[in-house]
Amino acid sequence: MGLKKKPAGAETGLARRRFLNTAAAAGLAGVGMAACSDKPASAPAATAQASAPHAQPNPGEGAGSIHLKPGELDSYYGLWSGGHTGDMRVLGLPSGREITRIPVFVPDALVGWGITNESKDIMGRKADGSLKYTVADTHHTHASYKDGDYDGRYAWINDKINARIARVRLDTFTCDKITELPNAQGFHGIFPDKRDPVDEAVNYTTRVFCGSEFHIPLTAADIDKPEKYRAIFSCVDAESMQLRWQVLIDGNCDLVATSYDGKLAATNQYNTENGVKYEDMMSAERDACLFFNVARIEAAVKAGKFKTIGDSKVPVVDGTRDANADPKTALTAYVSVPKNPHGVNASPDGKYFICAGKLSPTGTVIELAKVLDWFDGKLEKIDQAIVAEVELGLGPLHTAFDGRGNAYTTLFLDSQVVKWNVDAAIKFHNGDKNAKYVVDRVDVQYQPGHLNATHSETKSADGKYLAVGCKFSKDRFLPVGPLHPENEQFIDISGEKMVLLADHPVRGEPHDFIIFRRDIIKPKQIYNLDDHPQAVKSAADGGLTRKGKKVTVRMVSQAPAFSMREFKVKSGDEVTLFLTNLDKVEDLTHGFAIPNHNVNFIVNPQETKSVTFTAGKPGVYWCYCTHFCHALHLEMRTRMIVEA
Amino acid sequence: MGLKKKPAGAETGLARRRFLNTAAAAGLAGVGMAACSDKPASAPAATAQASAPHAQPNPGEGAGSIHLKPGELDSYYGLWSGGHTGDMRVLGLPSGREITRIPVFVPDALVGWGITNESKDIMGRKADGSLKYTVADTHHTHASYKDGDYDGRYAWINDKINARIARVRLDTFTCDKITELPNAQGFHGIFPDKRDPVDEAVNYTTRVFCGSEFHIPLTAADIDKPEKYRAIFSCVDAESMQLRWQVLIDGNCDLVATSYDGKLAATNQYNTENGVKYEDMMSAERDACLFFNVARIEAAVKAGKFKTIGDSKVPVVDGTRDANADPKTALTAYVSVPKNPHGVNASPDGKYFICAGKLSPTGTVIELAKVLDWFDGKLEKIDQAIVAEVELGLGPLHTAFDGRGNAYTTLFLDSQVVKWNVDAAIKFHNGDKNAKYVVDRVDVQYQPGHLNATHSETKSADGKYLAVGCKFSKDRFLPVGPLHPENEQFIDISGEKMVLLADHPVRGEPHDFIIFRRDIIKPKQIYNLDDHPQAVKSAADGGLTRKGKKVTVRMVSQAPAFSMREFKVKSGDEVTLFLTNLDKVEDLTHGFAIPNHNVNFIVNPQETKSVTFTAGKPGVYWCYCTHFCHALHLEMRTRMIVEA
Repeated sequence: MGLKKKPAGAETGLARRRFLNTAAAAGLAGVGMAACSDKPASAPAATAQASAPHAQPNPGEGAGSIHLKPGELDSYYGLWSGGHTGDMRVLGLPSGREITRIPVFVPDALVGWGITNESKDIMGRKADGSLKYTVADTHHTHASYKDGDYDGRYAWINDKINARIARVRLDTFTCDKITELPNAQGFHGIFPDKRDPVDEAVNYTTRVFCGSEFHIPLTAADIDKPEKYRAIFSCVDAESMQLRWQVLIDGNCDLVATSYDGKLAATNQYNTENGVKYEDMMSAERDACLFFNVARIEAAVKAGKFKTIGDSKVPVVDGTRDANADPKTALTAYVSVPKNPHGVNASPDGKYFICAGKLSPTGTVIELAKVLDWFDGKLEKIDQAIVAEVELGLGPLHTAFDGRGNAYTTLFLDSQVVKWNVDAAIKFHNGDKNAKYVVDRVDVQYQPGHLNATHSETKSADGKYLAVGCKFSKDRFLPVGPLHPENEQFIDISGEKMVLLADHPVRGEPHDFIIFRRDIIKPKQIYNLDDHPQAVKSAADGGLTRKGKKVTVRMVSQAPAFSMREFKVKSGDEVTLFLTNLDKVEDLTHGFAIPNHNVNFIVNPQETKSVTFTAGKPGVYWCYCTHFCHALHLEMRTRMIVEA
Repeated sequence: MGLKKKPAGAETGLARRRFLNTAAAAGLAGVGMAACSDKPASAPAATAQASAPHAQPNPGEGAGSIHLKPGELDSYYGLWSGGHTGDMRVLGLPSGREITRIPVFVPDALVGWGITNESKDIMGRKADGSLKYTVADTHHTHASYKDGDYDGRYAWINDKINARIARVRLDTFTCDKITELPNAQGFHGIFPDKRDPVDEAVNYTTRVFCGSEFHIPLTAADIDKPEKYRAIFSCVDAESMQLRWQVLIDGNCDLVATSYDGKLAATNQYNTENGVKYEDMMSAERDACLFFNVARIEAAVKAGKFKTIGDSKVPVVDGTRDANADPKTALTAYVSVPKNPHGVNASPDGKYFICAGKLSPTGTVIELAKVLDWFDGKLEKIDQAIVAEVELGLGPLHTAFDGRGNAYTTLFLDSQVVKWNVDAAIKFHNGDKNAKYVVDRVDVQYQPGHLNATHSETKSADGKYLAVGCKFSKDRFLPVGPLHPENEQFIDISGEKMVLLADHPVRGEPHDFIIFRRDIIKPKQIYNLDDHPQAVKSAADGGLTRKGKKVTVRMVSQAPAFSMREFKVKSGDEVTLFLTNLDKVEDLTHGFAIPNHNVNFIVNPQETKSVTFTAGKPGVYWCYCTHFCHALHLEMRTRMIVEA
């Protein structure tokens, strides 16, 4: 990269940014190859004053050993997006162990997600009853709030491929609702609100905001008119999971952030050029952090000032730049930030949103009070809400916080995390060239994307652990063929210096995650029989009934047996089978597989599920328990006898 | 359980076994509840002389710290079956970190397994081109041998639900062949041979043996005649993955083991009663370890002494008990072992197969030289090959070895691993009541199933680490709802006493695994362009061609761009898209997703894949890179324009 180490703040301008201003493909290819070098030892040099990385585990005060003894529990939960694996993952911290994966958008053979009728109904079916989608790409997961901290009710996660939002219940760790966003493509950023902008009593999450990345024609007539393509910003009701409203906008949405007072949501945007080729998408010097005035939008919707698009009945207001030039009526405000920014994050003191520069080496600090001032006509230009724009290093992507006034930003190209003080950065930006805003840097292995710290996205940010999702693991783990794992690294941030604690391989490709104290949630261990309206409450309640070619089988499991030792159907029958697990002991799950019929699912204690299938060719099919349950688990079977 | 601690060997008979002889359902339910108690602190008491468990990490000589510093590599690979997740997993030991998961029998949204044409061809399609199966239940994985140790070529894994065997290449860590076994249901145990029984030069794996668990009617006419149901034992060619031959047998196969001389394969059997209800399956006092004389079976097949079943052309020889009473012509030999045994394992000295009792508290040691003597007419009764049958504890399931003469057996009901000396057990069995065969016991959390030690299944068993797959984790990890993870525990076995090192949660439900030194394999990091006959070798080699409604799109990826920035098709076209990743840098993988078309897959460096889909309704679909590759990854897209 040819960059020399320089003291932070030694450059008054943003000179180094010019490095990424040459939009020619050749130059970019060079950047790309550097980013993806197979010579990990020669990571780009640190760009500023902070000392060299600290490889020796030497945890500071507050963060204990990450190496738990057998049986010791973790202190924090982590919820991780699974990327194009399509799931959500639950990690324990500080150990870094993956405790479970939650099937969300794509089928899962273990639990029968996408196999059972109940899961198919959540996932969405085609007219013929089969699954509408079997692939997904999850990027971001965030949880519900109350009083500015997590309340342990829900988490939400996006599917970028098919523009779907899913909700996960944090009592059962299961997905209970999925909504496909109309008029949207490439749904990427997602964030719940933290309180209502108007109603003081509603100091908890009732909305989830969704930014779509791809700009598309709104009618088939505009397919060949890229200048008419637009992206969309959606508001989904946190409880009903129905769309409340959408905003038509300029630019492509990346991430989403929300303010603690409920008044503002924002999305950082690249491609405000509305280009359709990547060279065009990065031609402008600055893009935007786009703010939404939630109360004004909802007032406009209430007043009928909206349109609808195509078949969708969702009210759509106009949030484009030209339509919102007057601050007194504006629904949106486009704050300019350096080119192709990546990530927007709310500081836990409620004051700032920070955008990372990606193609600019800067972080941009936007003061929310000033954004509100602009909407109120008290600030002349919206860009006056920018209170700092400082150099951090090459390829800044995302920012986390420790609750002590420090921000931690990933530097994709430098393969570092930089710790910087927000107040000092504002002072530096205001002309105090002695303000040393960069506190520390640590090398990570290798190119980091998202990072997050314990409770970083809440008012309770506690500054203990930082996790960093590194996008190339290269030589950090035993080689497993051409497809490498990603590398989640854990860093102790309890002291002045960051201390790298551990590497953990993760199957591709997690993006974002949140980390919260274990006391936040109290998961259920056993279902209630009445959770399912068709629960089979005893063996006597079960049996086989037939209506023409439609057969219903109702059965219970209780270790080590299914209540029916055999059942007879005819080849070609449409069979619906309900299975209730009557076992009440925690962790006593049973499975139910039918050979050659694509049926397998599990029932947890007191849970009921159902499957519908067509009985195959005549023969005996031993349905068996797939989930180890008992010394006689192998013997736990029932015979499905299919007659001609 | 009401059992008192007693010195090992203090009981001359198998008195405690009577505990499990009451086959009444009520009694069994009691066992089940004990096994699945939610009071982990009150695990059943140790049954023998060995001292209490050793919870403090105090690794003995030979096994170092399990806590690797950032960047330190593991010493061992572990290949883990994924249970009804349907995959294979790769762990690093001693850290216990899961490095990757290999999609095998079920679709995987990350890599596009079950989405790409190449993977669909391996997985198997229906007549309409869709996948034949989307669920699976993998239990056992074992790797190819040379000179009695692993050679790093292949691993094989079973699917119990649909009776399929898959092969995984250990250079690319990908599945390359799947074969469905005819005439079989509930294919469970699997083991490769270690050399040819006849040809001295073939001192490596050329066969894989597969035992089917479920006994089924061989013709539809026998559906209602359970006494005619039979199970089958199959031999698959290790290279072609085609069936070589099958053996019709009595009883239900559980696990499979093979001898180091290539002459014998064996499967332990429960339900030699041929019962169809579980009470009947455990009515007999003893079941069997069934041996196969490989050379004689192949001679019989060569001599045409076989039949075929139904549509299958696979030669089937008769291995039932009655047909093989004469040792001089017998193809099979049924050695009796206590009721419903679980697991058969070959000792690394090549001398013994050991069966664990499950419903009996015993381990049965069978001397292979004596089994061969019986086939040679030199041993009067086949059960004289049993050289030891000793009490180990309640619910023995599986056995591993340390290469120093000791065996380690999981005790499901006692929630322990017992370490015992095989020679001492033989002495004890022969009347030396002073022989203390039990060396140590360690509590595990909780009910253990499979266990395995480093290189345990080879002549190079090194006795360093032992892994134990515990089937209930209960309170060992942060709660994640009603579905708990399993608990893989790692134990240092390098010293006299076992030392429990760590707990690792794993998503359900791994069963079996093998662990080998990292020097055994040298994985490929980059594919060869010529691996795929349709590789797109340059942007110029690509483009769009049309034949009626069939469109072929050929494209390359090179960070940060696809070679085609857009392509136009018509709604309803059958589109086949080939994508070659021209990037050569290790770990520089790209993804390719098409919104609303169920298409997502990845291409690793120099890899080519293809998908076929029907173009949807008119509109613009931004196909994008799903696998983080470059600072301009978000901008890496191509527009699929679908015209009316």
